[in-house]
Amino acid sequence: MEIKDIYKAQERLAGTVHHTPLEYSATFSAATGGKVFLKCENLQKTGSFKVRGALNMISKLDLAPGTKVFSCSAGNHAQGVAYAAKRRKVDAVIYMPRSTPIAKIAATEGYGATVVLEGDIFDDAQAAALDACKSCNGIFIPPFDHEDIIAGQGTVGPEILDDMPYVNAVLVPAGGGGLLAGVAFAVKAINPEVKVYGVQAQGASAIAKSFGTTPIAALDKINTIADGIAVKTPGKITMEYINKYADGVLTVSDDEIASTILALMERAKEIVEPAGAAGLAAALCGRYEFLNGQNIVCLLSGGNVDVGFIHKIIERGLISRGRQIRLSAVLTNKPDALEEFSRLLSKNGANIIAVQYDKVNAKLSFDETILHVTCEVSGHDHGKRVIASLKAAGYKLEEN
Amino acid sequence: MEIKDIYKAQERLAGTVHHTPLEYSATFSAATGGKVFLKCENLQKTGSFKVRGALNMISKLDLAPGTKVFSCSAGNHAQGVAYAAKRRKVDAVIYMPRSTPIAKIAATEGYGATVVLEGDIFDDAQAAALDACKSCNGIFIPPFDHEDIIAGQGTVGPEILDDMPYVNAVLVPAGGGGLLAGVAFAVKAINPEVKVYGVQAQGASAIAKSFGTTPIAALDKINTIADGIAVKTPGKITMEYINKYADGVLTVSDDEIASTILALMERAKEIVEPAGAAGLAAALCGRYEFLNGQNIVCLLSGGNVDVGFIHKIIERGLISRGRQIRLSAVLTNKPDALEEFSRLLSKNGANIIAVQYDKVNAKLSFDETILHVTCEVSGHDHGKRVIASLKAAGYKLEEN
Repeated sequence: MEIKDIYKAQERLAGTVHHTPLEYSATFSAATGGKVFLKCENLQKTGSFKVRGALNMISKLDLAPGTKVFSCSAGNHAQGVAYAAKRRKVDAVIYMPRSTPIAKIAATEGYGATVVLEGDIFDDAQAAALDACKSCNGIFIPPFDHEDIIAGQGTVGPEILDDMPYVNAVLVPAGGGGLLAGVAFAVKAINPEVKVYGVQAQGASAIAKSFGTTPIAALDKINTIADGIAVKTPGKITMEYINKYADGVLTVSDDEIASTILALMERAKEIVEPAGAAGLAAALCGRYEFLNGQNIVCLLSGGNVDVGFIHKIIERGLISRGRQIRLSAVLTNKPDALEEFSRLLSKNGANIIAVQYDKVNAKLSFDETILHVTCEVSGHDHGKRVIASLKAAGYKLEEN
Repeated sequence: MEIKDIYKAQERLAGTVHHTPLEYSATFSAATGGKVFLKCENLQKTGSFKVRGALNMISKLDLAPGTKVFSCSAGNHAQGVAYAAKRRKVDAVIYMPRSTPIAKIAATEGYGATVVLEGDIFDDAQAAALDACKSCNGIFIPPFDHEDIIAGQGTVGPEILDDMPYVNAVLVPAGGGGLLAGVAFAVKAINPEVKVYGVQAQGASAIAKSFGTTPIAALDKINTIADGIAVKTPGKITMEYINKYADGVLTVSDDEIASTILALMERAKEIVEPAGAAGLAAALCGRYEFLNGQNIVCLLSGGNVDVGFIHKIIERGLISRGRQIRLSAVLTNKPDALEEFSRLLSKNGANIIAVQYDKVNAKLSFDETILHVTCEVSGHDHGKRVIASLKAAGYKLEEN
């Protein structure tokens, strides 16, 4: 690949995908000591960068009338291919495993693609997609391991450098490696001084394990909340580019990703999926050292996250930040016991959200009851004050 | 006020606040029949438009050395004044009611202001702020009812028209009316053809009640989740501008606001506070009729929302969209009763998230138990299939 392939891809994409915003974050800069910029591919068409590679590849095809494109994905690539095919007036058939959430099927069909549900796991769906593609002389659009896909994803690179010429480093989430390969190649071609790092989930770090060595690592199993970068085996072509152009590959834990998602919601008002938060998580958790207030771009690669998942992330965050306290208190069996206890909570500004009585407990004497109670408080200090005042009133307490 | 006051305010703000993005939303356009654009003041410095008015007013002051500015707010105005004062190197003292959440106090102090907690309700805090301001010859920065504040908020108007000259209507959230007054004035001055509507919460609709009549309505009590526009009495000056330049004032319910917040998170990847979602809620709920695919700008006025609140919004959304089902089932008192019941749930792909046993129930015979269970399912259809299969297996069920 040459840099002109990236620029040609940019021309193919112009007017169809967004030049996404590069946002300076004062909050994350203060938290890291660098100057942190967010490249918002979560605001890209279809909610992720994947549309860039798919559109570049499909735009280059010289198709006989009636030829279809095929792909297999349970995630962002499906929507990217569907959207790209529609814009290029090509019929697309996307295979998905049967377990794919309704919302993703609906989004892909919403862009006009035909969705075929096949197989219990991804590999079965992909085998079926390849068979179907072959049997009707279609073109298969792979998720990452193809020069045209890499060049398309690489168009993120010049956009960053156009908006922020003095960038010192770019942190790029990596699963199969298409985005990292493309961005590393493009950025180094334009300015070899800029560092480019991949960031993977600790539970799916095949690129980190393969970086600078042979053969390419293939993981038996992967375990991460970051489904968008949960890939067992990175691409051959992508690894060649990554080994040649990237400066390193960092890893972050699922907990670090989760707290980064929450921080992005609260401070940057951005919804980002777990894979998309990995780059910023590496910066916030000190995986990349900031020297002299360097300009760091964290690539937010996608925003397609289920609200049910956000619900769980927030719940975890509320507890870890002391916004909820869970207590077990021993109450005596008298009619006004609950009344007295709850009066004390209300006087201290604690808002009860769950209560459970437990009279069947071998540790209790016959005139005692255990009350399990969950309260909202404003933070750790408030929680401590509430607990102290209950203890001062003579209650035996356990914090859960 | 003349339009040149808006342009002068723009000059004072340039380089210190963002020209926020105007995003086209294909999703919300399809849902409404118009072409919907989102003006993202949730991405403004300090998380809301309030910084515009505060910065304009403070920039115009000719202060003797040591003079302080004072204000009173439990919300976005506090952060706006604090940030503006810091940028203009003026000391700011912000009074807040004692009940103000820690996060808002911390954010205001984080911009360098002195925070004074005073009084149980807003009115007490404001009285204390006015006293303190007077006693040290300070300058009070009001939240909305001042020409310089209105002119500052009005700078949103030319930004919209610069980015989208062919706009047909702008929907603006309104509480005290500063933003609506400023935007209506500026937009009509530049292009009288453009309609400008205010949008209020049904539970705090003093501007809607006051529009086109005298005297100005003062509400005894207000009740809405949209704290940013929960104002009992709109301003005198703001109402003059609104009566003269706005085309109407619409209202939306709290439920409509809540489901709009969820839709913004899911589809636009934007975090918006309840007040900030009111304009789009009016569009999505048909309060404004779209003729011939008109270009409609919905002003997202702010994004400062507590994650605990988002948690509740999502919870409500998950249930109303059929993503959670709550059942009570009658089980017989035999050792494997729970095992059998949960096997059936698991076989049907329902994920149990809460379970409660209830043996103390007068409606039951002695060999029966009630099981209260909450499950995650993929949607209404899946929920119905789960319930049907439980019924087919002979369970007596109640849906809660």
